[in-house]
Amino acid sequence: MTQANSVFKPSSAAPDTTGQGTTQLKAPYLIYFGDVPKHGYAKTGLGLIHWRRERCAGQMRRDGCVVDGGLPDMDIAEAVKAGARSIVIGVASPGGPIPAPWLHDLADAARAGLDIVSGMHARLADFPELVDAARESGAHLVDIRAPSKDFPVGTGIKRSGKRLLTVGTDCAVGKKYTALALEREMRKRGWDADFRATGQTGIMISGSGIAMDSVVADFLSGAAEQLSPNAGPDHWDVIEGQGSLSHPSFAGVSLGLLHGSQPDALVLCHDPSRDYLLGFEERGICPIQPLMEAMEQCLIFARRVNPAARFVGISINSSSFADPDHKRLVRQFADETGLPVADPVRDGVSAILDHLEKESF
Amino acid sequence: MTQANSVFKPSSAAPDTTGQGTTQLKAPYLIYFGDVPKHGYAKTGLGLIHWRRERCAGQMRRDGCVVDGGLPDMDIAEAVKAGARSIVIGVASPGGPIPAPWLHDLADAARAGLDIVSGMHARLADFPELVDAARESGAHLVDIRAPSKDFPVGTGIKRSGKRLLTVGTDCAVGKKYTALALEREMRKRGWDADFRATGQTGIMISGSGIAMDSVVADFLSGAAEQLSPNAGPDHWDVIEGQGSLSHPSFAGVSLGLLHGSQPDALVLCHDPSRDYLLGFEERGICPIQPLMEAMEQCLIFARRVNPAARFVGISINSSSFADPDHKRLVRQFADETGLPVADPVRDGVSAILDHLEKESF
Repeated sequence: MTQANSVFKPSSAAPDTTGQGTTQLKAPYLIYFGDVPKHGYAKTGLGLIHWRRERCAGQMRRDGCVVDGGLPDMDIAEAVKAGARSIVIGVASPGGPIPAPWLHDLADAARAGLDIVSGMHARLADFPELVDAARESGAHLVDIRAPSKDFPVGTGIKRSGKRLLTVGTDCAVGKKYTALALEREMRKRGWDADFRATGQTGIMISGSGIAMDSVVADFLSGAAEQLSPNAGPDHWDVIEGQGSLSHPSFAGVSLGLLHGSQPDALVLCHDPSRDYLLGFEERGICPIQPLMEAMEQCLIFARRVNPAARFVGISINSSSFADPDHKRLVRQFADETGLPVADPVRDGVSAILDHLEKESF
Repeated sequence: MTQANSVFKPSSAAPDTTGQGTTQLKAPYLIYFGDVPKHGYAKTGLGLIHWRRERCAGQMRRDGCVVDGGLPDMDIAEAVKAGARSIVIGVASPGGPIPAPWLHDLADAARAGLDIVSGMHARLADFPELVDAARESGAHLVDIRAPSKDFPVGTGIKRSGKRLLTVGTDCAVGKKYTALALEREMRKRGWDADFRATGQTGIMISGSGIAMDSVVADFLSGAAEQLSPNAGPDHWDVIEGQGSLSHPSFAGVSLGLLHGSQPDALVLCHDPSRDYLLGFEERGICPIQPLMEAMEQCLIFARRVNPAARFVGISINSSSFADPDHKRLVRQFADETGLPVADPVRDGVSAILDHLEKESF
């Protein structure tokens, strides 16, 4: 934390500007759902299929699986024949060991040469049967929660290219979804744009990225700087935000990511159905901030590294509101902030990108 | 970073409120200076001797050592006879390997049963001769930069007891020194107070603590919550701050520590000789913030977890100013902030504690 850290860091952590240190996945994927008993546990795999259908060769399910991602069902041999290069565990189940029958399937996949990709808390490398199987074939065990290398200390130095960061009034308000929707819409318009993933599901979807919550604290902003390296003057990096500056559990991650991202443009993501941070209602602390207050706080820090930083839109998750209420909320937040407001699922993000274009970055 | 992290964390990381997970050192110490060629590299050992003379049995130096900590010189055998239980590397040298003659001395110490304590970037466990020597005798290799266990996610829930956190307009402005001076003065007044260390030198001085910059980002505020657990209603934890919210390299650490510390009282540390953050002058970015602005930003976040949080003083490092200029600066900052201002080295911290007492926490 002292200045010494930036000076005395061993050479293995010397700054590089190539975006190395980001996790890289090999497509096409076989999505593994095992016998997952609940739809909610399979969000990772389903998100991956939703956003990157073209990178998915098939799905593998066991008896009792309640989820169907709409891909062809395959066993390992069929997946190999279809060209699959990785088996991706599409399930984020509670902590603890991976079920024995799943381990058996995963070991088979590794023996057949497929990388195993996991965003689970349990580390693949802690299962000897997987390590042995992978060693036989040369397959990799890819733990998305474990960053692949050390990162340099952040420098604060401005990089070339343009950056948009989604930020939020809370966790789980649509920061990843909004960033992916913005990238898709930018590309539709012919812009040069890349989604930059900062969490395990985002990394699975994009095929690369850095799990910011797993980075050692001293290198948070340095990792974020690596994630969106120098780029062409018209290139947009659309960076997946994490947490919230107002969140007493995760604000450190949010701030390191904000500083390292050096965003030109920011989009605030918000769930109007919440009065308190998710999980804090029963504690009676941490009400959701008013939008203007949340935006002001972000800008204070964003402008420390990029004086031109500004908000270009509000993304709301209005899934719990009927249509008339949704329309009322959109008007209310637009009046409050003077910015375009959209639910990316209901409205798409054109209005936000139209505004971004007019703002001439 | 999603809510799942707090729900699905494996049980090994379940919250505990005992302050476990903090590094614990065994005194008395033999301070090892090797043949350190510059005074500046020995700040760790000299700081430890300055603040905790009573825990130091002696010092060990090789030919060519330019530093004298004022302790009796000893070899390993003499140190063992004097009751030493740990050899503390008092030097923070540049990264890279530990010099071979030092390794030899350290291995001797471990064989004699002394724990080896290091705040260097190189990890003791990466040196087989140290591992072997320690295994023989049962001594421990204590890498202060490597936290000893997983931490829980921060909860934001208010704990009992009182907390003071030193914060800064930059790195290396006296946050550790000020916290130690405040703890000493509190104890002189008969208060129940503990210094809580958050960096490697602080941990060496206090004998326990958590190196916040080494914590995995998702658990920053959780680690800070562990560091100052529930305490008696009149007990003060005086917490060593890290970095600065305005620092684009380390602000994430500063914010996680601020949220997790839940300070009642804050002291702002400032070096009036700086125009830019240390090391940023040549980059031409990141001027030092005005004091009021820095304080306002801190309070926004501190009040998220403790609405009663307020500043109780300004600590300046005026070592580069002559006496008349020092006096002028003290007056100027006092006028500007309405708070007591002191250089803890020149003035002591009585004025700040007098004010704290009047503020009735």
